[in-house]
Amino acid sequence: MQFLKDRINELGEVRSPEILKVDRFLNHQLDIELLNAIGREFHKRFEDRTVTKILTIEASGIAIAAIAAQYFKVPVVFAKKVPSQNLDADTFETDVFSYTKKTTYKVRVARKFLHPQDQVLILDDFLAQGQAAVGLMNLVQQAGAELAGVGIVIEKGFQEGGRLLRADGVRLESLVIIDSMKSGAVQFRETEQSY
Amino acid sequence: MQFLKDRINELGEVRSPEILKVDRFLNHQLDIELLNAIGREFHKRFEDRTVTKILTIEASGIAIAAIAAQYFKVPVVFAKKVPSQNLDADTFETDVFSYTKKTTYKVRVARKFLHPQDQVLILDDFLAQGQAAVGLMNLVQQAGAELAGVGIVIEKGFQEGGRLLRADGVRLESLVIIDSMKSGAVQFRETEQSY
Repeated sequence: MQFLKDRINELGEVRSPEILKVDRFLNHQLDIELLNAIGREFHKRFEDRTVTKILTIEASGIAIAAIAAQYFKVPVVFAKKVPSQNLDADTFETDVFSYTKKTTYKVRVARKFLHPQDQVLILDDFLAQGQAAVGLMNLVQQAGAELAGVGIVIEKGFQEGGRLLRADGVRLESLVIIDSMKSGAVQFRETEQSY
Repeated sequence: MQFLKDRINELGEVRSPEILKVDRFLNHQLDIELLNAIGREFHKRFEDRTVTKILTIEASGIAIAAIAAQYFKVPVVFAKKVPSQNLDADTFETDVFSYTKKTTYKVRVARKFLHPQDQVLILDDFLAQGQAAVGLMNLVQQAGAELAGVGIVIEKGFQEGGRLLRADGVRLESLVIIDSMKSGAVQFRETEQSY
């Protein structure tokens, strides 16, 4: 996805060999034109799958999922990280370890929003160690729903998440895969179609 | 906005005379068709104003702002509540008291995303006591930017936020205003056009 690579090269900041900051367009300020291109691309890549619901996680997955959902014409459910007074008591929940924040947090979805007949597409901004994706997959499994696939905007190909998910037979589509940021420059993997 | 009133009547849950739960379509599961209607309506109501940026707050404002931004053709910036390792050190910040959670939290936006030449439209799901809106307005002021207006999906007209903002001369557009939920049923104010 050349449009996305260009944006990463132009506006992304490599903060360390592991950390890519994309706050100018993806997770603090949002480039809506880019999000639309991302949404269209996810729809194209998963057009062979039936999708009844898109599942993501707050906060940075929400805009990506909401814009993409326009192409799939399905509702979005976003899993909550922060305990909320208004959240149903009756939830699916799982623990997710954040390597970035070095802490474990709970992720919850109200049970009424995931059903056994759902075919769920998980969308998120980053895939690194895969903790958030595995947590969301766990919620789908608890609901007895089917996983249609996992769509990721930026996969850090030098971390374990992508390998783990593919080894597990998950239909994973990452719009770009980064193989290295060691030199301070972003090296993209050539093959984008990654299943 | 009849479409929104219908959705609230059909799927909203009055949990107490102050609490309206809209998790089935607005802030946990997201009805994307409804969000599009909301975005179009915000654009119509603010079409006399120049808007260069939409500002909202995580998490439930993000989808509303992102979908609406497609009609305004401007970027979204969402203020962050949770301290994040990747957030710039150089931020505008302010304290917001949450009546729902009975706690004060910090709200931050990286300085590089709000400039004196910006004309900022603030969008959010609810307006109750007005704490979040006032906090976001404070960030706009710190940046020396101009406030184009505040757009709210659901205003609780029986709480103080709307009165305070209007008394302050803020161009406030609430798509629906609820006058009472005392009977367990939602009573909407007749006049929608609220400036």
